[in-house]
Amino acid sequence: MKIALAQINPTIGDFDENSRKIIDAARDAAAKGAELTIFSEMCVMGYPARDLLEKPAFLAAQDHAIGNIRRELKSIPVLIGYVRRRSGEGKALHNSCALIENGEITAFGDKCLLPTYDVFDEERYFEAAKGPVLAQFKGRRLGLTICEDAWNDKDYWSARKYADDPVSNLVERGAEYIVNLSASPFSLGKQAAKEVMLASLARKHRRPLLYVNQVGGNDDLLFDGRSLAFDGDGNLLARGPAFEEGVTIVDLAARRQGADVSGTLSEEEEVHRGLVMGTRDYARKCGFKSAVLGLSGGIDSALVGAIAAEAFGPRNVTGVALPSRFNSPESLGDAKELAERLGINFHVVAIENLFGAYKEALAPVFAGKAEDVTEENLQARIRGVVLMAISNKFGHLLLTTGNKSELATGYCTLYGDMCGGLAVISDLYKTMVYRVSKYLNARSSNPHKAPIPVSSIDKAPTAELRFNQKDQDTLPPYDMLDGILKASVEDYCSAEEIVAMGYDKEVVRKVLRMVDFNEYKRRQAAPGLKLTSKAFGTGRRMPIVQRFRDTTV
Amino acid sequence: MKIALAQINPTIGDFDENSRKIIDAARDAAAKGAELTIFSEMCVMGYPARDLLEKPAFLAAQDHAIGNIRRELKSIPVLIGYVRRRSGEGKALHNSCALIENGEITAFGDKCLLPTYDVFDEERYFEAAKGPVLAQFKGRRLGLTICEDAWNDKDYWSARKYADDPVSNLVERGAEYIVNLSASPFSLGKQAAKEVMLASLARKHRRPLLYVNQVGGNDDLLFDGRSLAFDGDGNLLARGPAFEEGVTIVDLAARRQGADVSGTLSEEEEVHRGLVMGTRDYARKCGFKSAVLGLSGGIDSALVGAIAAEAFGPRNVTGVALPSRFNSPESLGDAKELAERLGINFHVVAIENLFGAYKEALAPVFAGKAEDVTEENLQARIRGVVLMAISNKFGHLLLTTGNKSELATGYCTLYGDMCGGLAVISDLYKTMVYRVSKYLNARSSNPHKAPIPVSSIDKAPTAELRFNQKDQDTLPPYDMLDGILKASVEDYCSAEEIVAMGYDKEVVRKVLRMVDFNEYKRRQAAPGLKLTSKAFGTGRRMPIVQRFRDTTV
Repeated sequence: MKIALAQINPTIGDFDENSRKIIDAARDAAAKGAELTIFSEMCVMGYPARDLLEKPAFLAAQDHAIGNIRRELKSIPVLIGYVRRRSGEGKALHNSCALIENGEITAFGDKCLLPTYDVFDEERYFEAAKGPVLAQFKGRRLGLTICEDAWNDKDYWSARKYADDPVSNLVERGAEYIVNLSASPFSLGKQAAKEVMLASLARKHRRPLLYVNQVGGNDDLLFDGRSLAFDGDGNLLARGPAFEEGVTIVDLAARRQGADVSGTLSEEEEVHRGLVMGTRDYARKCGFKSAVLGLSGGIDSALVGAIAAEAFGPRNVTGVALPSRFNSPESLGDAKELAERLGINFHVVAIENLFGAYKEALAPVFAGKAEDVTEENLQARIRGVVLMAISNKFGHLLLTTGNKSELATGYCTLYGDMCGGLAVISDLYKTMVYRVSKYLNARSSNPHKAPIPVSSIDKAPTAELRFNQKDQDTLPPYDMLDGILKASVEDYCSAEEIVAMGYDKEVVRKVLRMVDFNEYKRRQAAPGLKLTSKAFGTGRRMPIVQRFRDTTV
Repeated sequence: MKIALAQINPTIGDFDENSRKIIDAARDAAAKGAELTIFSEMCVMGYPARDLLEKPAFLAAQDHAIGNIRRELKSIPVLIGYVRRRSGEGKALHNSCALIENGEITAFGDKCLLPTYDVFDEERYFEAAKGPVLAQFKGRRLGLTICEDAWNDKDYWSARKYADDPVSNLVERGAEYIVNLSASPFSLGKQAAKEVMLASLARKHRRPLLYVNQVGGNDDLLFDGRSLAFDGDGNLLARGPAFEEGVTIVDLAARRQGADVSGTLSEEEEVHRGLVMGTRDYARKCGFKSAVLGLSGGIDSALVGAIAAEAFGPRNVTGVALPSRFNSPESLGDAKELAERLGINFHVVAIENLFGAYKEALAPVFAGKAEDVTEENLQARIRGVVLMAISNKFGHLLLTTGNKSELATGYCTLYGDMCGGLAVISDLYKTMVYRVSKYLNARSSNPHKAPIPVSSIDKAPTAELRFNQKDQDTLPPYDMLDGILKASVEDYCSAEEIVAMGYDKEVVRKVLRMVDFNEYKRRQAAPGLKLTSKAFGTGRRMPIVQRFRDTTV
């Protein structure tokens, strides 16, 4: 049986465009001999639609789109992800898939296991299915599962989130093929683990397994595609493209597929491709064609500039240096060099006069008060206002350049450097910012064409909000800081456990206090592209007003 | 049997303070003859603790606090809400209550129905109980329920969210009393509906019903207390105080209680008391003792100023007028008059020079471009920067003054008038801002002492960001706008349904487009105090990047 795995990049709620992609991909696959084309979870509306699911008019628009798909595809069979209304007690919807043949829905299956953790809110909207559905397709029995349904094998997981295993249930009932429609958000290291897990599932049940994942960026979530087909021995037969749309046709009868499935991506490569895709999709789906960002001469804005140049094309990106008396000439030089290397537009807007004008305006109110962090924040906010003015005047999307280490510790200014529509690298620790920057430079065979100035990488990081300021005056060294942050934010380790890893007790206490104290800043942060298992944003829901302090050390 | 309903105001994660409140209230109630003191849901940690629940150290701190409560209370019995760890498949926690007698937990009951909608995320953390628990207390059988457990009676609700009804289950098994521990967030009109519903439940089952609700503000959520006791005929025996802590003792044997339970609050009164409590709690629990806000002379900042003066005390509030060339002398006069009426501190910081300095700094970048909304936003952002500088320098909490009508339509400037730590009136439509302002003035027997200047109420609303600007140049009249917004945002009506209510088709289309388009601003808004059934904030989770447009008209 020849099957097509069609990973499309849907825009939430753009039913016309999403339907068009589904129809085109199915026709293309059928023309190439596919008997069935499988799409991703909720492909008609795009995942995650969130509270749009509560609008009856939104659901009606989906049903209308499905009607069009059925009519247009005629005899071409597809398996699509959609949302199905239900009645009775409980939630009003199922997260479902439908087999469409000859314009009719000949089978549908509802999702059994509903993830409700991190970025997932599925219990908010959906009723869980009582059990998975076995569908008949041209004399074969397909076991229909949706995303999480395949993630609860008792032999694979030491701790299980749910009592039931829909895959075992389907195999026991005679499924010949396991099919899984997913919208599985990217995070670093997840694809390798996923491939091991799905291979073990196919092998254990001795059934071919077909997995189709969404691709593209929707708000903070990145979907990396890389759909997969395994034979009943757990051999990987085919893998869809990473971070790109694509239709992958797999012949389940053939012992070997033409496709090369040996390649894996390095972490730096995954981050780079994910950020370019996420930035491009956020802008494109919002209608932005150009971007602006502040260039400090430092590594963070250099990396965001390089990502933006790829995502928008260099001529559609504007970098702005905003020097004050505290910025060294070298910093301005590095900013200018970056712009030249990237081929982006470049402006210099000095903020010294503005800084003076604020101090003068505030002098009567501030009489008798010494300068303090207020004046540092003031500079950052002046820059934010200038950048937003340029964004407003030209319709550029302002990109925020803060990293995860800064956002975690509050080493950033609300309404200052935190201004922007998208926080491109807010889920990259500073140490990863360095790794990815060096990776981008190393890709260039000619060092003169490397995107990021060497001195932006080599110099000591500084916010330059007062004379001779260095990040490490306030923060622990970044390798130490990032280790503590990962343990605390991603793995929920206690202070005691983090100290047991070898970190200094006082440093751990200080870092955890900074993280707790700065929740209010993160609540007002721009959406950021999620790369790790726990990003600040929709998947981390901490109270602002709370007094718990980890006192285990 | 004499029972105490103890509604305390916990701070999330302040285990020492929360335990102290529990111990003090129980001792006080016991001294007054109560046989048992009942507290609210999750009273030891405070509700909602959100993702703090995922930190093992946080749960360990709760258990430690419960140990202290058990030891200190000795023979005084209490029924408290807490979080109970569990093992096996599924979620790691139960949302529970524990009966503590003589220092031991003699019974515990887990929550059966887990709300996972609007602001609630309980399926994210908790496993539902298999069924409710009947506890023995001094020879009586208490039916233990937690909040949502009491909200699924099949005779009361035309549509039920869950299949089970824990209350009926308990009565069938012999419960003599129904007990309900709640943390039920305030919204307008909810208390009256709740009293009718709980009375019907007591009457139907012919069982006394005791309901204890949390009080106080935690982030965006307001809890109004107003604990309730009903006899088995559904008569209201006692009601705890509104928006205040209190221990209410009820004698279930007595036919009549001394307390007057006839009083209900008007909507304006509820809004006023809720906002003062919420503002005070947000600041106090964060450690702020003073506040600052911009005073435009308009009604929104006047109302927020009046709330702040009550919440912080007038001498701890600073109002700042920030006039530009576009502000009329009357506006400045109204701002000054407000400050005088309230007795708050008052500064004037003119922004004209700053506006000029930005235009000069941006002139090379903006060459050849006409003035547009950029320059309007610029003024709002200059004001935001000045107010944040004052907030930083003096440690004042900056209060944002935008209302729900503005936030819905995006008639506000990100990083401008949206700057602030708390959005006091962001869940009040403009029409409600007027109603509450008039209510506050009407409360003053002496019109000269009324807090809000009459001209702030009477004049046409204006942002004063260009000459002769009026809100109604951009927005429909507020009574029309607010009606459309309520139907769309709170009730998810389609455009077609809203037009059928009598609103103009073009106006409806325009308003819905504005709401859809401005999700990105709201994502970066300050947390706001929730007053309606659907506030912008944690309970409304819309994608930013989405292209669904309601085309039903």
